[in-house]
Amino acid sequence: MALKSIYLPEPSFEGEMARIGGEEHRHLVVARAEAGEPVEIFDGKGNVWAAAIVSVGKREALMRVSEQRRIEAPAADVTLAQALIRTAAFELVIEKAVELGITRIVPFVASRSNVTAARRPDRWLRIIVEAAKQSKRYHLPFIADPVGFEAVLSMPAASRILFAERGGGPLKSALSGSPVLYLIGPEGGWTDDELSAAKDCGFCLVSLGEGILKAETAAIVGGALIRYELEKNG
Amino acid sequence: MALKSIYLPEPSFEGEMARIGGEEHRHLVVARAEAGEPVEIFDGKGNVWAAAIVSVGKREALMRVSEQRRIEAPAADVTLAQALIRTAAFELVIEKAVELGITRIVPFVASRSNVTAARRPDRWLRIIVEAAKQSKRYHLPFIADPVGFEAVLSMPAASRILFAERGGGPLKSALSGSPVLYLIGPEGGWTDDELSAAKDCGFCLVSLGEGILKAETAAIVGGALIRYELEKNG
Repeated sequence: MALKSIYLPEPSFEGEMARIGGEEHRHLVVARAEAGEPVEIFDGKGNVWAAAIVSVGKREALMRVSEQRRIEAPAADVTLAQALIRTAAFELVIEKAVELGITRIVPFVASRSNVTAARRPDRWLRIIVEAAKQSKRYHLPFIADPVGFEAVLSMPAASRILFAERGGGPLKSALSGSPVLYLIGPEGGWTDDELSAAKDCGFCLVSLGEGILKAETAAIVGGALIRYELEKNG
Repeated sequence: MALKSIYLPEPSFEGEMARIGGEEHRHLVVARAEAGEPVEIFDGKGNVWAAAIVSVGKREALMRVSEQRRIEAPAADVTLAQALIRTAAFELVIEKAVELGITRIVPFVASRSNVTAARRPDRWLRIIVEAAKQSKRYHLPFIADPVGFEAVLSMPAASRILFAERGGGPLKSALSGSPVLYLIGPEGGWTDDELSAAKDCGFCLVSLGEGILKAETAAIVGGALIRYELEKNG
């Protein structure tokens, strides 16, 4: 049985005891967690505590906390600026971004964005937390409130990449080190205005190879290739 | 409006006319296809016909077919051997494999496979056809009936890769050209017996980098990286 992870963004222990309420407590109840079971508590910022369940009550669970360890953040600092797309696809992107160790997700409104997509920061955070538990990512990516395209264009990074369906160059020559910022457009694709604005702002247009990838697939594949290139050279 | 694609695995035209029935006819009805609308017909084997709708009746649609073109298959021949995993994850893998231009999908039963996952070849084919239409992949991947792990181990390829959570080497040194066969395990991971059997059969164990990827994410990321490396060198 996999070790259960409990997310506690601002841990305040009473001596060696921790009280777990709210959503994380409900998860323990649903998972039939039992007294004596070893667990781990993490704060999403790289701090992890070994712990053991003392009791699971109706409103809270009690844990005895033992040693703390510190997990380093992934070496590469990668920001995904993702156009708002339909809800299921956007949520898939969030989940996979966590698995890939993306540092930051910035949703933005593109000309062809599906802006009827639900903006649900609370739900986005839950998806991030659950994905982090499963993939043992102890640094949660930061997810920003949706911004406009101009705000994305003004974000600084050592490597600034826009993945385009056509007309892009190879990834390798666009990567000049970390931090990396990469842009993924909406289902309907980029407009010509957006592409030239990005070029004017110094972004490199990069191709993801032959064939058309859906927006969410491009986000996953783009992130995976960036990570692959950075890890190879770092 | 995007050009509608109609899948006709065994086209038999009457002169320059084509009759479309069954599932593809229902799609046209749902999409409110109209007389005069240009469409394309494809057979999933690289043949594409430009056509125009003549009529959409209750039981079939009639098309007038004009010129035919031939689309080359992706240069790289890549087979994904995917352990049976839960249905939603398995279906996501199929869809993304089409987008990535994977040639062949071989489902297999691993020791820790979720064999309660529905084996629904009809549904798998529908997912493949719909993904092919969206990503304009005119060569459908072949999907095999599920086999045992031994059958996978005996499949020939120039590059034979097993993606492992730990203990794997870099992808680049495992890739010695096309055709490529890559193996993705079930949610619960590989058993030690499976790993050593694969090594005995000459498979290269490859790592997908730091962090734990879910089975379906590993299938997508692994396929994307293989394609990336092959296109770079081809």
